[in-house]
Amino acid sequence: MKLHVSRRQRATPYSQRVEALGVSGFSVVNHTILPKGFARSVEADYWHLKSAVQLWDVGCQRQVELRGTDAARLAQRMTPRDLRGARVGQCLYAPMIDENAGMLNDPIILKLADDRFWFSISDSDVLLWAKGLAFGMGLEVAVDEPDVWPLAVQGPGADDLVARVFGEQVRDIGFFRFEKCDFRGHPLVVARSGFSKQGGFEVYVDQFSLGADVWDALWQAGEGLDLAPGCPNLIERIEGGLLSYGNEMTRENNPLECGLEKYCRLDGDLEFIGDQALIGIAARGHRREIRGLLFDGDPCPACQHPWPLAIDKRQVGYVTSAIWSPRFERNVALAML
Amino acid sequence: MKLHVSRRQRATPYSQRVEALGVSGFSVVNHTILPKGFARSVEADYWHLKSAVQLWDVGCQRQVELRGTDAARLAQRMTPRDLRGARVGQCLYAPMIDENAGMLNDPIILKLADDRFWFSISDSDVLLWAKGLAFGMGLEVAVDEPDVWPLAVQGPGADDLVARVFGEQVRDIGFFRFEKCDFRGHPLVVARSGFSKQGGFEVYVDQFSLGADVWDALWQAGEGLDLAPGCPNLIERIEGGLLSYGNEMTRENNPLECGLEKYCRLDGDLEFIGDQALIGIAARGHRREIRGLLFDGDPCPACQHPWPLAIDKRQVGYVTSAIWSPRFERNVALAML
Repeated sequence: MKLHVSRRQRATPYSQRVEALGVSGFSVVNHTILPKGFARSVEADYWHLKSAVQLWDVGCQRQVELRGTDAARLAQRMTPRDLRGARVGQCLYAPMIDENAGMLNDPIILKLADDRFWFSISDSDVLLWAKGLAFGMGLEVAVDEPDVWPLAVQGPGADDLVARVFGEQVRDIGFFRFEKCDFRGHPLVVARSGFSKQGGFEVYVDQFSLGADVWDALWQAGEGLDLAPGCPNLIERIEGGLLSYGNEMTRENNPLECGLEKYCRLDGDLEFIGDQALIGIAARGHRREIRGLLFDGDPCPACQHPWPLAIDKRQVGYVTSAIWSPRFERNVALAML
Repeated sequence: MKLHVSRRQRATPYSQRVEALGVSGFSVVNHTILPKGFARSVEADYWHLKSAVQLWDVGCQRQVELRGTDAARLAQRMTPRDLRGARVGQCLYAPMIDENAGMLNDPIILKLADDRFWFSISDSDVLLWAKGLAFGMGLEVAVDEPDVWPLAVQGPGADDLVARVFGEQVRDIGFFRFEKCDFRGHPLVVARSGFSKQGGFEVYVDQFSLGADVWDALWQAGEGLDLAPGCPNLIERIEGGLLSYGNEMTRENNPLECGLEKYCRLDGDLEFIGDQALIGIAARGHRREIRGLLFDGDPCPACQHPWPLAIDKRQVGYVTSAIWSPRFERNVALAML
């Protein structure tokens, strides 16, 4: 099906590069286009991601910046994850919930300073939620979408590639940590993170006009590393159990049924939006849970609507994402049961 | 360019119908797919819309419902338009701004009751903004996205078609007014409105499972009316000066430069978010304005990035949407100057 584009589906600094490299299609995330495939098949791309290194245009991972006296206070209200011990330089995966404990997003929070945070978001306008809260609560905090366009380097060759451009010290960056690394006199946030389980980095290019230069530098440094353009791979994502907001979880789901309990402080010691609702759900026990599944049959089509899942004709849940796995030679899926 | 679909790009009750009718592509609005074309060309579709009647899947026009004691108070805070004299049954086009007077959305507000409103939104998550404000301000108001899926009937034949399904009384519905009309025992909101200048209705189908039946009833009633499936037409929209949020205007723009002053109460008598900022801009005078343009040359491509516009090599603005007009035999555009 054709995607019609306009200014409303924002391009990224890398869009022209991925078009030149033969991108075959896009999705739309945060009003921004996300490449979804190149010339090779999803299966070939899967094997490549697990064995080499890929450059991904993830400019759609928009940042919501909280800055000012009340930034830490607002950030903490927005998630059940305890941020009080977080250190500058840390990336924190954080469920975001509303007053009923319904999932609103699941960003990576980057703590840039004690009074400055980036929420690197999945697909919902967290900016408006944060702005509404800040205004309504009368907080002293600036809430913006800064000019930041993430680029991901994923796969086992990522350390070698990123070291060639940003220096050997990137090898020492810990998992879910970031450092500022120099790019031609411009310090960029480089984090060991990304939407795959194959290892790698996300580079937070904080100036649109710098984006193509960073892309080109990484692209040109790829010699001998079997570097290819890529994108989040559905097979690898499902096998790795990585959740996608809007697919596996929506506002209808709470973080406990999404398997995110370890990111939730539930002992009443932390004040956050939805705390009472979430503690109540934990006390009563949640009735559904996201699980990985394997199933036989021919390679399945894309899961656009949740597929009902039955045992003995009784519906017990629904599949939210599914695809054929060449490794298991069966279909793999994520399902809410 | 191919659009990749998943559950995250929600289907509407009409998606299977428009696919059966040969939809050629989609856009994504409010995390929901919007048909963008059928077999015929945009030009042929333009002439048809101006002479016959079309059925549009506009399920992506999601509703944000405010309900409760403080619903009217919150609604008024969210727009510079004076809602105090609004009557039940009225539709009100309303710019929505933030504390800096930046545009956040431009919904149609439907006043369903003194304590119940629907904001029929363009492409941003107004739900999160309203929920954030309600929580932060401690208001007594329920903020939800109800199970409502608008369907539009547009074009000069719309009265005849809608009367055949909902009864002759629809002819008496005034412009930007709505009535509840019976559909097989189910009262549906039918409004004289829509995203074209050719006249017509929007039917607010308030139950997903009822959608296909309403579509089918309208489709089957079309005999002799030259009914066709359609969608917002870019030529007609630009010629009619209808703005599209995310294209002509973003958070970077205020409503005055968008030509929306007549929807803004600027005398200080109304309290709304951004009131001081907007009154200040009005006092200083705004420096840019959206205008319609005609220009010569070959039919232009789609405007994905704003095109710079120069007079004597000095940039004076940018084009946000443009297309070849078969009526003027020139290109038509909307631009911020």
